[in-house]
Amino acid sequence: MEKLKALQRLEESLNKLPSVGRKSAERLAFAMLDMDESDLQEFADSVSKLKESIHICPICGNLTEEDVCSICKDESRDKSTIMVVSTPKDILALEKGEDYRGLYHVLGGTISLTKGKGIEDLKIPELLERIQSGNVKEVIIATNPTVDGETTALYLAKIIEPLNITVTRIAYGLPMGGNLDYTDSLTISKAIEGRRKI
Amino acid sequence: MEKLKALQRLEESLNKLPSVGRKSAERLAFAMLDMDESDLQEFADSVSKLKESIHICPICGNLTEEDVCSICKDESRDKSTIMVVSTPKDILALEKGEDYRGLYHVLGGTISLTKGKGIEDLKIPELLERIQSGNVKEVIIATNPTVDGETTALYLAKIIEPLNITVTRIAYGLPMGGNLDYTDSLTISKAIEGRRKI
Repeated sequence: MEKLKALQRLEESLNKLPSVGRKSAERLAFAMLDMDESDLQEFADSVSKLKESIHICPICGNLTEEDVCSICKDESRDKSTIMVVSTPKDILALEKGEDYRGLYHVLGGTISLTKGKGIEDLKIPELLERIQSGNVKEVIIATNPTVDGETTALYLAKIIEPLNITVTRIAYGLPMGGNLDYTDSLTISKAIEGRRKI
Repeated sequence: MEKLKALQRLEESLNKLPSVGRKSAERLAFAMLDMDESDLQEFADSVSKLKESIHICPICGNLTEEDVCSICKDESRDKSTIMVVSTPKDILALEKGEDYRGLYHVLGGTISLTKGKGIEDLKIPELLERIQSGNVKEVIIATNPTVDGETTALYLAKIIEPLNITVTRIAYGLPMGGNLDYTDSLTISKAIEGRRKI
């Protein structure tokens, strides 16, 4: 049986999404055949117009649909603290907690030997400019606790500390609801190292 | 942080797909932000035009982009055998094997008490008409080996057998590459029951 062209075309597009393999793409495409025509058109339109309104905040590098992102625009936020993250998606995760009231700075990745990403590919000059021109007292480095994230954090600490700014790193430890039994030994040793008085 | 409207809209559409939850929808939407604009437009277009060209084959109920599906149209196929399946997707799976050279008939579901689907919702009259008007010798029932699939198979056998047609059921047993250790007892007992001389 020849495959239907319209289905195949959709499967190829779906297949470009991360963790959607050939089999999942086929399953999703068939499911979409069962969707209402109006839902399909809404889906198509939301894909087509995705990037139309979204761009990068010129101050922090976050995604926004306005001139400046909602965080940079928020007068109530603490402008003396900048949290450095790799991607805009990290901001979304950090904002879910609602504890942090400072600003952000998106690097646009991390230093990565494997991906061939160097210092020059990251928004480090912009970060230094923000630190020097503003009233920044603390820079919290919130790159992921991976080899690349750690390398980036160490590099940033090395170049920011001479500017007389406190540089901190988010804590390592057991995830809440986690289980000692299933936690890798590196995390456990970091959790012991970072212990606090209760 | 307020969520970006364009992202949220896309996430809502993605969330309508089977097994794509809130978290996956968010992950996929962000990944799509990194896609080329041309890939995005191709994606949108493939979604938008999905159903435009696809319709149901008037003979067997398979999906097709022509008047009649490629299987019904294929003169080389054995018109004396009809394999009865629940959905067009089942045909795709069966055709991958390339062993079967007969025709198909799509019921459009199975009899299901839980889903409130009765005999009247299935394309059974169309099947009987095909059997009676053509030169059909065998009807192979290939509904899934589930409660609903079995109920449907038994019902079909009961109404087709009086027409002097051989009604068969696809075999139950261990899946190839399967592992006895991980196979449920019902499958094992069916595999033993269906044993053949080697």
